[in-house]
Amino acid sequence: MSETESSISRLTVDLGAVQRNYRRVAAELGPGIECAAVVKADAYGLGATRVAPALARVGARSFFVAQVEEGIELRPLLPDVQIFVLNGLQPGLESSCEQHRLTPVLNSLGEVELWTAHSRKRSQPLPAAVHLDTGMNRLGLPTSEVTRLIAEPERLRGLSPLLLLSHLACADQCEHEGNSRQLRLFQNWRGQLPAMPASFANSSGVFLSVDYHFDMVRPGASLYGVNPVPNHLNPMVQTLLLEAKILQVRDVDRGTTVGYGATHRINDAGVRLATAAIGYAEGYPRSASGRGLAFLGDQRVNVVGRVSMDLITLDVTGIPADKARPGAWIELIGPHLDVDVVAERAGTIGYEILTSLGGRHRRRYLEPS
Amino acid sequence: MSETESSISRLTVDLGAVQRNYRRVAAELGPGIECAAVVKADAYGLGATRVAPALARVGARSFFVAQVEEGIELRPLLPDVQIFVLNGLQPGLESSCEQHRLTPVLNSLGEVELWTAHSRKRSQPLPAAVHLDTGMNRLGLPTSEVTRLIAEPERLRGLSPLLLLSHLACADQCEHEGNSRQLRLFQNWRGQLPAMPASFANSSGVFLSVDYHFDMVRPGASLYGVNPVPNHLNPMVQTLLLEAKILQVRDVDRGTTVGYGATHRINDAGVRLATAAIGYAEGYPRSASGRGLAFLGDQRVNVVGRVSMDLITLDVTGIPADKARPGAWIELIGPHLDVDVVAERAGTIGYEILTSLGGRHRRRYLEPS
Repeated sequence: MSETESSISRLTVDLGAVQRNYRRVAAELGPGIECAAVVKADAYGLGATRVAPALARVGARSFFVAQVEEGIELRPLLPDVQIFVLNGLQPGLESSCEQHRLTPVLNSLGEVELWTAHSRKRSQPLPAAVHLDTGMNRLGLPTSEVTRLIAEPERLRGLSPLLLLSHLACADQCEHEGNSRQLRLFQNWRGQLPAMPASFANSSGVFLSVDYHFDMVRPGASLYGVNPVPNHLNPMVQTLLLEAKILQVRDVDRGTTVGYGATHRINDAGVRLATAAIGYAEGYPRSASGRGLAFLGDQRVNVVGRVSMDLITLDVTGIPADKARPGAWIELIGPHLDVDVVAERAGTIGYEILTSLGGRHRRRYLEPS
Repeated sequence: MSETESSISRLTVDLGAVQRNYRRVAAELGPGIECAAVVKADAYGLGATRVAPALARVGARSFFVAQVEEGIELRPLLPDVQIFVLNGLQPGLESSCEQHRLTPVLNSLGEVELWTAHSRKRSQPLPAAVHLDTGMNRLGLPTSEVTRLIAEPERLRGLSPLLLLSHLACADQCEHEGNSRQLRLFQNWRGQLPAMPASFANSSGVFLSVDYHFDMVRPGASLYGVNPVPNHLNPMVQTLLLEAKILQVRDVDRGTTVGYGATHRINDAGVRLATAAIGYAEGYPRSASGRGLAFLGDQRVNVVGRVSMDLITLDVTGIPADKARPGAWIELIGPHLDVDVVAERAGTIGYEILTSLGGRHRRRYLEPS
């Protein structure tokens, strides 16, 4: 069955655009500062096994995943890079980390102890990142444990090389006073611990100021096109094209309603609707019901009525019949529709739009030219 | 790596419960009325290749998918059942439908013509469903085309066996006047077309009244535990257990904040938080931020702060330390938390919670005993 015959939605990932975004972030950095890449959650839904090698080809040498399983998947593709596991070292995972040369991000003194014990058992130094919680209350050493680590730095003996790490809670709000408070705390703690490279900034953190860069930055969302500086011009390029095929076009009668719950009433004569083959089961969010946008060529159309599981309905009144026709592709994310715009319409953030894309689309990867 | 060592969330699908729900719906039906099963969108996220055979074992003989590709996937597993394709017959898919013995749901006179032309070419009758749009304005023959079909019933020549089909827009609101209006229209049109079996009711439609049953009903969501009669006791049993592992537990200081955006402030002393390894990348919706519920054994805990991509934070203040500990599993959907409750907390419907589950969980299937 050829692609043109398929009724399935289509997702095109532009790996060259991902690479350009990586270079764009790296261009913000002073000499010697490393630009790592966050590829957890299947590279935010874009496909880690394609995205991570593409990033390695433009110079990324350190990658961050959330789970050990994600690191194991990447290792054979990228035998020479450093792979950090953000969710830390759960008891029993020591051998997996060692075997696949994964660097755990140690989130507690308990995890530090687990990993140093494993290092002793193996009589060899093991790499690690130590995550200090400066204001997320989520993962990382809380203040009480940082204090103990400062008093007993020998707890890190046997771990090498080391990276000191923390994470910003509000970096996407450049004026938020929490940013500088977290920064001061991180600098303060860092000054009291053994010397080691440090990493603090996520995508938005990179654009806050050079004070947040330290020795390594960890962009994720920006690589995939999400704007790291909300309310300012997006310095990133879009990396995705999400399209769905029109299945049917109909003239609808005034006074009738559209879709589940009859939430959209047709108040005018001469309205034409198109039904396209994508829905919330394919990651097009139900919260975009009656609010989502799409493009048919250069013409904007509105999602009307509720988003169904496998279908959406669009108001194509006034669009020429040779454009709004069964078999035509509509754009839902792409050059006309930034992922951030799609997210805003759905009441969420670009990150969730990306990670919801799922495996049900026909995927194409554009290789860099 | 054994399962107990994994940091990944865990989804258990109880196939026996799905079978009990099928029997429960079928018990509503009079003699001779067929209970089909809707297994589109990977059986609403539960896994069609496991769910559909389990349903066939308790008597389901007709299955509904949305896309041809879904039917092709099921056919080798279920060689003897009828598989309907709801999204219809796109030009070029005729041979695929014939080859895999898929029955297209014809949504327009154009699709009727495509399929009858294929039937003529093959000189053999082909099975089809004809979908009349009685009030969705989404897919199906609009009134103008139904009128033409009534005037020219020979348009169906060559198609056999036939099923007449329509779909309810507001069946989950039993008092909605649209239900009886759609019913009357369907009965009226049916009376003017050649005699053939008919199907009208989705899950909620089954419970509206026997008038909606016709010859075949098409439950989907109810099979998977979604309540087909909102605001009444759910006659269905839950089919899922979604769990995530606690990674870290911490005592947090008064005046600090939790997670991205610092949206949750700790106003009391003695608060303990647990961070668990699930987030919106695994389908736990970001819209449950600060509103979601979870269970640790029999004890209810609240999601506090924003849901992150791979993590959630829970207030476990007052839960014994041997329960709220790293490595413990928390329940997010399951015996204590109906999928409908989870959905309500996230501002959506159970259908979207199910179809968002995705492939990132460690899956287990419980076979019927």
